Amino acid sequence: VTSPAEQDRLSLEDLRRIWPILSPEDRAAGFQLLDPDDAQAFFIGLPAAGQAEILESLPDAQRRLWIRLLEPDDAADLLQEVAPEDQPRLLALLDEGTRREVNALLAYAEDSAGGLMSPRFARMRPEMSVDEAIRYLRRQARDRLETIYYAYVLDREQRLIGVVSFRDLFAAPENKSVAEVMNREVITVPEDMDQEQVSRVMSDHDLMAVPVIDQDGRIKGIVTIDDIVDVVQEEVTEDAQRFGGLGVLEAPYLQTGLLAMVRKRAVWLAVLFVGEMLTASAMARYEAAITQAVVLALFVPLIVSSGGNSGSQAATLVIRSMALGEVKLRDWWRIMHREILAGLSLGLILAVLGLVRILVWQELFQSYGQHYALLGVTVALSLVGVVMLGTLLGSMLPFVFRSLGFDPASASAPFVATLVDVSGLVIYFSVAEILLRGALL
Amino acid sequence: VTSPAEQDRLSLEDLRRIWPILSPEDRAAGFQLLDPDDAQAFFIGLPAAGQAEILESLPDAQRRLWIRLLEPDDAADLLQEVAPEDQPRLLALLDEGTRREVNALLAYAEDSAGGLMSPRFARMRPEMSVDEAIRYLRRQARDRLETIYYAYVLDREQRLIGVVSFRDLFAAPENKSVAEVMNREVITVPEDMDQEQVSRVMSDHDLMAVPVIDQDGRIKGIVTIDDIVDVVQEEVTEDAQRFGGLGVLEAPYLQTGLLAMVRKRAVWLAVLFVGEMLTASAMARYEAAITQAVVLALFVPLIVSSGGNSGSQAATLVIRSMALGEVKLRDWWRIMHREILAGLSLGLILAVLGLVRILVWQELFQSYGQHYALLGVTVALSLVGVVMLGTLLGSMLPFVFRSLGFDPASASAPFVATLVDVSGLVIYFSVAEILLRGALL
Repeated sequence: VTSPAEQDRLSLEDLRRIWPILSPEDRAAGFQLLDPDDAQAFFIGLPAAGQAEILESLPDAQRRLWIRLLEPDDAADLLQEVAPEDQPRLLALLDEGTRREVNALLAYAEDSAGGLMSPRFARMRPEMSVDEAIRYLRRQARDRLETIYYAYVLDREQRLIGVVSFRDLFAAPENKSVAEVMNREVITVPEDMDQEQVSRVMSDHDLMAVPVIDQDGRIKGIVTIDDIVDVVQEEVTEDAQRFGGLGVLEAPYLQTGLLAMVRKRAVWLAVLFVGEMLTASAMARYEAAITQAVVLALFVPLIVSSGGNSGSQAATLVIRSMALGEVKLRDWWRIMHREILAGLSLGLILAVLGLVRILVWQELFQSYGQHYALLGVTVALSLVGVVMLGTLLGSMLPFVFRSLGFDPASASAPFVATLVDVSGLVIYFSVAEILLRGALL
Repeated sequence: VTSPAEQDRLSLEDLRRIWPILSPEDRAAGFQLLDPDDAQAFFIGLPAAGQAEILESLPDAQRRLWIRLLEPDDAADLLQEVAPEDQPRLLALLDEGTRREVNALLAYAEDSAGGLMSPRFARMRPEMSVDEAIRYLRRQARDRLETIYYAYVLDREQRLIGVVSFRDLFAAPENKSVAEVMNREVITVPEDMDQEQVSRVMSDHDLMAVPVIDQDGRIKGIVTIDDIVDVVQEEVTEDAQRFGGLGVLEAPYLQTGLLAMVRKRAVWLAVLFVGEMLTASAMARYEAAITQAVVLALFVPLIVSSGGNSGSQAATLVIRSMALGEVKLRDWWRIMHREILAGLSLGLILAVLGLVRILVWQELFQSYGQHYALLGVTVALSLVGVVMLGTLLGSMLPFVFRSLGFDPASASAPFVATLVDVSGLVIYFSVAEILLRGALL
């Protein structure tokens, strides 16, 4: 008997709980401790990368059984997780029909409608009666269909001419024809549509599944909503990581080795650091001014950070609205108008706060010498300029990145802050040189 | 005829595209320009807030028709969007049965399993034959069920004893009983489970729907996966806005008035600004040192921003892993260990870059005077300290917030940066005072 003794078994819930923190070896061992039904459920529920890991850990004889548990679209995802040279070996484990389906799916980009779709959908002919259609569907249900929630009505050339929800079919009088019951206005997506857009189409139209069609209107497969939930989470994680200034990790945080993670973070941190070195150069340009009026240096962190914070706010709003499809590339002009007004208001508010602070401290501690009023105005004007600049850069950079074909979330909080830090210093010292000439400078 | 003439009609797609940028009055007018079928599809597809807006714009006589189009869970969501004093008036428009269902749903928190669920699910009894069950389901399908993908098997006390997928029922021999075909191990959620957790349960188990049960095991309703897609998007937007340092907007960006948006952003920006004022106080403490060695001031923005950037990276990783359920509160100790090592490595890398920069600039431009080497070591050591601090604060603050009952994403990039700015200055000048005493100071 190869299955573990009753008392040594691990429950499905327990393994799910500890899974993220296990090493690859412990995962393989833990998987072997599940009872056979739990192991199946666990394996099918894993993301493709985890399935690939388990599969690699199994003896050759068992691999065939496990990979055959997967639907063709899931098998294709798994194959895309392993090294290209290992793909043929795993493909050979599939039965002839599935292998053909999986090979067809592998031709699509992983993140396109074609890469997400399953070729196993329920189909019927328009001239069938409702009763025939239900019986025909019942026969198809014995195969492993992705969903029987919708059935797609095809003509003789496999072109999609209508869709009928299972519920409508079920509720219709038995002697009507499918053509009479079906909905002819089918929402479809092309094979190469990006997965984010597919998810938007489905959410806009409240669909449980959407058919993928080729140029000639022939149906190639369907994308179901359960795949879309994963897509949304995946895209969101990538956006968050870009926005946090660390690029995109390939695996969950706790499953990424320390070295790999440090490497990923170090690259971005170093790029930002080199950019931020410009602040040292900018400060050096104003070294004479600082020498004459050291008090100017005291407000440098306060002023540049206000620009960074307002930029982070604006970038967040625009990036998220783009991800939700609320804001399109052509909206940049309207948003620029809005953000100039917002930046001006926010800058004025901080300017008042900054001015009050300088006046109060002067009153209490005589901190800023005889020219405190001019200093206050310098700080206040600089705040207006820096906050407007931060708001403008934060809101427009996502448009720039998108129009260049990059992800808008690459306009990360640290990236915007770095740009604003450098230009904020220039604004502050330029204002100071104009206002304080003859007084402090 | 109240419906618009053919040539004046607006297409569904056009209205969807321009909707976000329309004023409430234009929305009401645009909605009236749809042909009746499109108007229905459009209304049902709108989020609850939009439905409420449309409903308010309609004459009394039409409201009844429109609100009755909604499923009970959607009607309850709509009612939660209007002022409490308007709820009874709208409730009165529903038919008796639906009103009872909606009233029951209104008792649940909007973001709990109970608040998401629909009471309209397919049900059957265990002793039915497969054939009877299919016929019974076919009768139920004529009512407006949320889904017929799963049917729930209940005993005489309405307790849930099993679930049968429609596909299994369809594929089973006609003379078997439902009890023989059903799956007895049903994944369920309690009424008060938070919607984020519900979405995790469904995604872990790859479910299209999950039943909600009360303490006695009686089924109260089901949550379907299409509701979960919206939940995920909503939670993600809230997290992104918190992390971007602007709190949570109640409506999409372009639908939020300029004044409301500025108010929301100003509150957070002002709080951060007041916190950041501590940098001016910290700098003032070291004014004497800066006066003696102005060169120290040049590196202030470079050093404090490195702490902010590394903190933003660490916070992003931990917050997102928490949102995905990969990291739990009890993992803080392991993550602290990991992040101390990561922070040390990242700090050392930036320290080397900083040192190289100072040596190269000294070689090329003699920028930093005779004590350039000591200055370089000061900057390098400070970078190690500040980056470690940023990494540690960024990774631990989400745990602090979560354990206090706040959202971990409140450990926003600007918030972490502000904390690190203040403490980073203290680290930098303390290192300088020790290393440069007798040389520059």
